[in-house]
Amino acid sequence: MPRKYYLEDRALDDAISRFEAALARAGGLRQPEAETVPLAEARERVTAAPVWAVRSSPHYHAAAMDGIAVRAADTVGATEAAPRRLALVHQAVWIDTGDPMPPDADAVVMAEHVQPIDEATVEIGAAVAPWQHVRPMGEDIVATELVIPEGHHLRPVDLGAIAAAGHATVQVRRRPRVAIIPTGTELVTIEAAAAQEARGEPVRAGEIVEFNSLILAGMVEEWGGQAMRLPPVPDRRELLRAAVEAALDLADIIVVNAGSSAGSEDYTAAVLGELGEVAVHGAAIRPGHPVILGVVAGKPALGLPGYPVSAALTAELFLRPLVYRLQGKEPPRRPELKAVISRKLLSPIGEDEFVRVTLGQVDGRLIATPLTRGAGVVMSLVRADGIARIPRFSEGLHAGAEVAVELVRDQAAIERTLVAIGSHDLALDLLGSHLRRLAPDTRLSSANVGSLGGLLALQRRDAHIAGTHLLDEETGEYNRPFVRRVLPNEDIVLVHLAYREQGFIVPPGNPLGLADLSDLMRPGVRLANRQRGSGTRVLLDYHLRRARLDPLAIVGYDREEFTHMAVAAAVLSGAASVGMGILAAARALGLDFVPLFSERYDLAIPRRHWESDLLAPLRRALADPAYKAAVEALGGYDARQMGEEL
Amino acid sequence: MPRKYYLEDRALDDAISRFEAALARAGGLRQPEAETVPLAEARERVTAAPVWAVRSSPHYHAAAMDGIAVRAADTVGATEAAPRRLALVHQAVWIDTGDPMPPDADAVVMAEHVQPIDEATVEIGAAVAPWQHVRPMGEDIVATELVIPEGHHLRPVDLGAIAAAGHATVQVRRRPRVAIIPTGTELVTIEAAAAQEARGEPVRAGEIVEFNSLILAGMVEEWGGQAMRLPPVPDRRELLRAAVEAALDLADIIVVNAGSSAGSEDYTAAVLGELGEVAVHGAAIRPGHPVILGVVAGKPALGLPGYPVSAALTAELFLRPLVYRLQGKEPPRRPELKAVISRKLLSPIGEDEFVRVTLGQVDGRLIATPLTRGAGVVMSLVRADGIARIPRFSEGLHAGAEVAVELVRDQAAIERTLVAIGSHDLALDLLGSHLRRLAPDTRLSSANVGSLGGLLALQRRDAHIAGTHLLDEETGEYNRPFVRRVLPNEDIVLVHLAYREQGFIVPPGNPLGLADLSDLMRPGVRLANRQRGSGTRVLLDYHLRRARLDPLAIVGYDREEFTHMAVAAAVLSGAASVGMGILAAARALGLDFVPLFSERYDLAIPRRHWESDLLAPLRRALADPAYKAAVEALGGYDARQMGEEL
Repeated sequence: MPRKYYLEDRALDDAISRFEAALARAGGLRQPEAETVPLAEARERVTAAPVWAVRSSPHYHAAAMDGIAVRAADTVGATEAAPRRLALVHQAVWIDTGDPMPPDADAVVMAEHVQPIDEATVEIGAAVAPWQHVRPMGEDIVATELVIPEGHHLRPVDLGAIAAAGHATVQVRRRPRVAIIPTGTELVTIEAAAAQEARGEPVRAGEIVEFNSLILAGMVEEWGGQAMRLPPVPDRRELLRAAVEAALDLADIIVVNAGSSAGSEDYTAAVLGELGEVAVHGAAIRPGHPVILGVVAGKPALGLPGYPVSAALTAELFLRPLVYRLQGKEPPRRPELKAVISRKLLSPIGEDEFVRVTLGQVDGRLIATPLTRGAGVVMSLVRADGIARIPRFSEGLHAGAEVAVELVRDQAAIERTLVAIGSHDLALDLLGSHLRRLAPDTRLSSANVGSLGGLLALQRRDAHIAGTHLLDEETGEYNRPFVRRVLPNEDIVLVHLAYREQGFIVPPGNPLGLADLSDLMRPGVRLANRQRGSGTRVLLDYHLRRARLDPLAIVGYDREEFTHMAVAAAVLSGAASVGMGILAAARALGLDFVPLFSERYDLAIPRRHWESDLLAPLRRALADPAYKAAVEALGGYDARQMGEEL
Repeated sequence: MPRKYYLEDRALDDAISRFEAALARAGGLRQPEAETVPLAEARERVTAAPVWAVRSSPHYHAAAMDGIAVRAADTVGATEAAPRRLALVHQAVWIDTGDPMPPDADAVVMAEHVQPIDEATVEIGAAVAPWQHVRPMGEDIVATELVIPEGHHLRPVDLGAIAAAGHATVQVRRRPRVAIIPTGTELVTIEAAAAQEARGEPVRAGEIVEFNSLILAGMVEEWGGQAMRLPPVPDRRELLRAAVEAALDLADIIVVNAGSSAGSEDYTAAVLGELGEVAVHGAAIRPGHPVILGVVAGKPALGLPGYPVSAALTAELFLRPLVYRLQGKEPPRRPELKAVISRKLLSPIGEDEFVRVTLGQVDGRLIATPLTRGAGVVMSLVRADGIARIPRFSEGLHAGAEVAVELVRDQAAIERTLVAIGSHDLALDLLGSHLRRLAPDTRLSSANVGSLGGLLALQRRDAHIAGTHLLDEETGEYNRPFVRRVLPNEDIVLVHLAYREQGFIVPPGNPLGLADLSDLMRPGVRLANRQRGSGTRVLLDYHLRRARLDPLAIVGYDREEFTHMAVAAAVLSGAASVGMGILAAARALGLDFVPLFSERYDLAIPRRHWESDLLAPLRRALADPAYKAAVEALGGYDARQMGEEL
């Protein structure tokens, strides 16, 4: 039951140099052997030897124009005023582009300058110099010439040049093979899980669907390697050892995924150490601390952590350079941009931290908004536009600080991103898909920080759009008073999106029979609340106050969720017996809904953005009946006034 | 025999809008239908529908740490000073990361803070908050949530997220199919040519090995399409028509390669016009003027010119956007940089010209050196680092002008490029391959403009290195006097590469029995000379003068070639009966050599470059016995003093 927990805390550069030293002791990386492939299959492969031309191109003197082949000497003095006649066959031969030149001809007169006189004679109105309009043999490639060096990454034009130089095949390096061994007794393959669910049997609690190997294999292929996904191995030391030994026969690099920590069922380090050398076990990086860098039978053998974000980021850091170097290449640098971080980011001082961020261009500044840092949240990798590195010995960044971001998405896509920061809403999620249909290159990036957070983001010029549903308790008016207060000097357009119902999200059948706010006080009732500053929270607090109910008497009042869906998920899981939220979130998870209030949800948009080209697709979407209908189909929405400016 | 030549001269934007209008009249581009593929095969495909989660991730409340699962309420008040005891089974359950939480537990105490007391009891030194160290159900993905939108290009992490959301397959758009039909009676396939040559029968003059379709197919695949290379079709109208009709059943886009001009055997426009509409025949672009943009049976049908550079560039301009749009994507913009053009570039005023350039970073400036503009020179595409566009209505650029260059190579590679401008030498070619072996990321880019041209390039700061073999006729000294004259204020290191023999390159057996310079005057002798400013030319002129021979009496004295290999190729082809050059060039083409003089070949390198990190691999190469041996193996070289600074 009790365990020992020993993990090193190697700084990143120290970890890398220990790993490199271990590889060097084992004789260094061994380049995969060469293989010969047909040119049509050689794209993106790397040459294993220089390619020398065995044929010239062109391999004969060729006419470069349609016209007549002549001896240049016979044309001397010809002008339009004093044309010259040439005898066909003897002095002039009709010729097409690409035809071989007759043996004694050395130039071509373009057809435009040739006047046929009779069957046997033509007249030319211009002289030509020797070799004019002729492609001499070897103009492009001379036989024996170097066409492509060794170690060259083959592009389509290279294949053409190799063919022009007389080859039908090319010697390339075998792609480096990476064996990926998932380990964990709880693992179920994607296919097995899908088959099980198709039979109506849901995946059980504690079973984990193994998808890391899919991500890792895709990354390896993207880097030019060949990935071999092996079946999951249960947490048994002798089975893992057998799997690693078998993989050593197949692959140039071994990756064991999970079991890399120091728990009672973590055998990866033990197995790699038994078969070879573990150079590093534990790096001072986040995510990815429990990483193993080893060498087994002269081959790199890595143990990557089990959480998907940790697995992907440690693969980037430690596996990517190996896959490139085994192809004789340096890994390409990713483009890096300076961005302004939109909110405070604390970072542990002892670690290099890699934070996924979304990016958007607002008022000429590139804004980076950190995504959730949970190592299990694969969606943070999906949503990321870039990775910001917070170096060791830094405590983090204050809001507005400049940070270097490595791009993982095309810069052009980032420039066409609409940045929405504010209250979460399902109609806004739908808008993202709808915008894409109207303008395929437009993206909507949403950060959910609540209504007030959104207005503050506009104040800091961190966003184009803030979704807001803030009730002014004094006037009963929505949004406008807050906009005036937070953004007094800005010309803000408030565009109506929809009215929506707020109420209780409850388990199917509403087992506790909750009907109004006072029911939140009942024993056994546990609330999933929204975070401070969110419109839903303001609404709840407003009505609690009006009903003179004490929030602190509500169990779960301090459990804050950041989205409607998170509230619904808490109810579905039983973690809460009721949540405040919208009908659509309840319906999405098959829960019941008790409507309590109706509220207006608007988009606050600075006029300069609202009228910009970037937001043109948004203006079209809000006027599109198809989008309006889709929002109303969510349930609990009244979208009749969608698009009205207030 | 006489023909009509009609080609339009549509400005690029006009050509594009006519083509677009024709496509719109035909109902617009038709998106390929959807297909369902396993996730492991879906990388780089584009989603045909939004992907919604059917399973939450995690799909149960999971421990996020190894430790004990507890009710947070039972831990209130526990500190190191005042630890708290919990009864195992009833109040505390040992749990591993990823395990499902017991039904009534809501937090995990990390193992580090747990002290086992006996079989039934543990002591904890810290309190935990509700949900601490727990991954709640749906933390990553909530069932019903949108995971990936429609029209999304799938990356490895996306595949992981789709699997996490409960899918084993994904709906993607079928890749757009592009049929490529090579046409030309003279075409021979790569495979047929190689087989023929393997039998000892060389490809005949007038036969053209068809490799454009290999380049075009590779480009289509690179853009995400599926290329179908069809067999070459002879120049017969009814055969081409049948091939296009057959391709229409298979593909979304038809590409006919060649026959796109207006010659007597150019049927592409006629066939496309017969089956559909030709919107454009002839665009004011260079290269690529004879391009055809048409629509047949509602599908784009292009006729691309036959010269490989024209085919590749027109494919970039007109085919690439179609292949992307059929995937619902915009073609990614290539990175563009400002560069300084290293020599004067005249451009026809009526055309948009696309000039291939090599790039290198010298003294902080990015230098663009134009490559040959021949449309048949596929090596100019292989060597290009970027494409400079000289717009219509521009007459060209003067040396030193700024020009925008679209990169076709990684920017990092360009920054690690050693720019050599000067005299051509085979030992220098070898150096390129050798550098790569020493430092895989280092490239050598050579422009051959002769020795004097190289020193002038150093003067303009356009190069790191100039290869030079200039004989001072007064002192008999090599290189140093010229360096002093051309670069009086620069600290130039002259590094010796090798001594080499210069002489006559003659056909095998030296049929004319040429033995010394006076033989060049003999009737029937035709010279292939080198260009003015080249060391070989200076040497020839020096010795002609000493022997009091009149250069103008030599037939072919005015036929200038720019490299030793081009001189050798002229002799091999019979275009010249003798050339001035080096032994290695003669030997490379199986020609004979008559040695006349020995000369020294040095590298002139400004000291700030010679001592830079960038040139470190060069310093190592010049000290490497393996490189020295390889140079001597070329023949005609004496490399004993290689690497000596003079």
